Amino acid sequence: MFARRMDRVTPSAIMELIKTTAAGDYISFASGLPDPAVYPVDLIRGLCDEVLTRDGRAALQYGAAEGYLPLRDYAAQMLRRRGLPATPEQVLITTGSQQALDLAARALLDPGDRVLIESPSYLAAIQTFDSYEADYLTLAMDEQGMDTESLPARPAARLLYTLPNFQNPTGLTLPEPRRHALAEWAAPADLAVLEDDAYHDLRYEGEALPPVTALAENPWAIYTGTFSKVIAPGIRVGYLYGSPEVVARIAQLKQITDLHTGSLTQRVAYRFCAEGHLETACRSLCETYRRRRDVMLEELERTLAGVVRWTRPQGGMFIWMTLPAGRGASELLGRCMERGVVFVPGASFHPRGGGENTLRLNFVSAGEEKIRAGVRILADTLGAWLD
Amino acid sequence: MFARRMDRVTPSAIMELIKTTAAGDYISFASGLPDPAVYPVDLIRGLCDEVLTRDGRAALQYGAAEGYLPLRDYAAQMLRRRGLPATPEQVLITTGSQQALDLAARALLDPGDRVLIESPSYLAAIQTFDSYEADYLTLAMDEQGMDTESLPARPAARLLYTLPNFQNPTGLTLPEPRRHALAEWAAPADLAVLEDDAYHDLRYEGEALPPVTALAENPWAIYTGTFSKVIAPGIRVGYLYGSPEVVARIAQLKQITDLHTGSLTQRVAYRFCAEGHLETACRSLCETYRRRRDVMLEELERTLAGVVRWTRPQGGMFIWMTLPAGRGASELLGRCMERGVVFVPGASFHPRGGGENTLRLNFVSAGEEKIRAGVRILADTLGAWLD
Repeated sequence: MFARRMDRVTPSAIMELIKTTAAGDYISFASGLPDPAVYPVDLIRGLCDEVLTRDGRAALQYGAAEGYLPLRDYAAQMLRRRGLPATPEQVLITTGSQQALDLAARALLDPGDRVLIESPSYLAAIQTFDSYEADYLTLAMDEQGMDTESLPARPAARLLYTLPNFQNPTGLTLPEPRRHALAEWAAPADLAVLEDDAYHDLRYEGEALPPVTALAENPWAIYTGTFSKVIAPGIRVGYLYGSPEVVARIAQLKQITDLHTGSLTQRVAYRFCAEGHLETACRSLCETYRRRRDVMLEELERTLAGVVRWTRPQGGMFIWMTLPAGRGASELLGRCMERGVVFVPGASFHPRGGGENTLRLNFVSAGEEKIRAGVRILADTLGAWLD
Repeated sequence: MFARRMDRVTPSAIMELIKTTAAGDYISFASGLPDPAVYPVDLIRGLCDEVLTRDGRAALQYGAAEGYLPLRDYAAQMLRRRGLPATPEQVLITTGSQQALDLAARALLDPGDRVLIESPSYLAAIQTFDSYEADYLTLAMDEQGMDTESLPARPAARLLYTLPNFQNPTGLTLPEPRRHALAEWAAPADLAVLEDDAYHDLRYEGEALPPVTALAENPWAIYTGTFSKVIAPGIRVGYLYGSPEVVARIAQLKQITDLHTGSLTQRVAYRFCAEGHLETACRSLCETYRRRRDVMLEELERTLAGVVRWTRPQGGMFIWMTLPAGRGASELLGRCMERGVVFVPGASFHPRGGGENTLRLNFVSAGEEKIRAGVRILADTLGAWLD
């Protein structure tokens, strides 16, 4: 009775793992969740009060599918600072950046269309493309992310999906020359590019690099981002940027999907930004997350140098570990869970299989002491298992 | 470059009309919007403060795709009072009931599948079905809503969509014997039934009738509703009810669509309900809306009796008017707009065309004096035009 597309809508391995371990007392490197201890609760309480006092009726009324205009305008200014020539009508406000990915895929993918995608890549994007019955052409990655030298001569695909900053799950950042190469390769081929920049603000070292979308004139380039990662995920406010024509069409889809994103939460996000809290929150979050990353990297170096390999992310939330060939991360997970530590085996992130010897470690969910303790258990278990 | 489904994603005539007339000083019977003057702004401000004080970190964190469990539990209790044997795991919280309709359609409709639908019906549902490339079999309506005598012997369709309470756009309510007939006809045929009960709480006279979904054992019956209509539309909190299996599958879709509905707004909706404000707000809203309905009906009776026909809704937000055959509501709208009054011509609500001589009047957006003035202008314009 279900539609054919449902054959490829399956439970997320990560979600199942998180549900399984939610009750127990685990040190979790598994989730994609930030630590709620860092959320600016008092500030947001004050902003809710302010928005409802100043503009309460509009904050509770239906709104435009495209989003709250001052927030679209703020997002456009922010995107211009990132190098994108954005006007407010090029910004669609979405219910988190997950919805931006889903709407873009819904607008662009017919069943059987091919998506060019880094392997591994963001699981919930793969699941979204799966639900539109996409096929995949996977792109090889090296220590610098997508290997743009290996791009096919002609892109036999409808859409390229890329996550160039602190990629989920690998933590890798695409260097600037590769961004140029990618943009210049896609544009003349009329290939739609969906650039997911959800982690943009979470950079702990180095200079921000220009978005791929900014580096070539491509009317089919779509760029997505979110306010949720810095303000708070529970408010569900993200955005999609593209040409005015593409944004107008996707806004029509947005309207039939959920009419519009919450009027109150959009206004709270806007006040948060307009009053300058985004920069402050971002600095404080980056400080905390950088220390946690450093603690995890230090502890990995101390306990596992020479035994396994891992990435050294410049930002974001994840470190990617590669076990010796032939050793399965799922088996290691079983052993670690017995000792109270969880992570996500890497196979799920590969749209066409592979990666059984890889795993993803979230370094922002747990505090520093738990990170040290968890890595020690991981290293100890891993050492015993490899012997 | 767009996916084929986008051929049928087009701007909403209503949305365009609302945008066109937003700037001017119109008396609007056009929108589907309630009057924001009735929203409980202070109460919601207090609840935001309470939720963020008591449970701030969880209210800002990611949540389960299925929704906030206390709210699912509350919804299940409420649905049991409506006659549905609901458990919390049979309730999925959605970003407004529009999302519930979209997710149900996405889960059930393949391109070319037929939807049995009342004609006229809710425009944004038709647009959603269009986006999944559905075809339609329309069901005739009389003064009591869907004519269940005219149901085909076998339902050559995948899904039946019905809005039995105070239907948008006609305002009609399906009588109980017809609900039984419909439920008993659909269940043995394995026909999925999508019952949209967005206006359930807005009943101004008579006793509540049982949902169609409650009247026969049908594992493919899905029922949708919303908290937005009584609490406030801008919070975007609705729900979907179905068998545990169907709800679990649709929750997987929900996860890839927007991860979950806002954590803060779900908690505010829950506190609103748990503290008993839903009943109070509902009573007060019904009191206000009933008066407005009565004023519009009185004024129509006074000015247009015998000239045109209209419905007398027991609840909801809309009155449906039928002009003499051969007279187009679009032409009348043009004339009324010149005199500052807008409504929605009825043709848009017909999935397979027709209804050019019909129109929809929203009786809740404007206050009583404006309703009187607007109907007078409508009647005057209509009289002159018909002569």
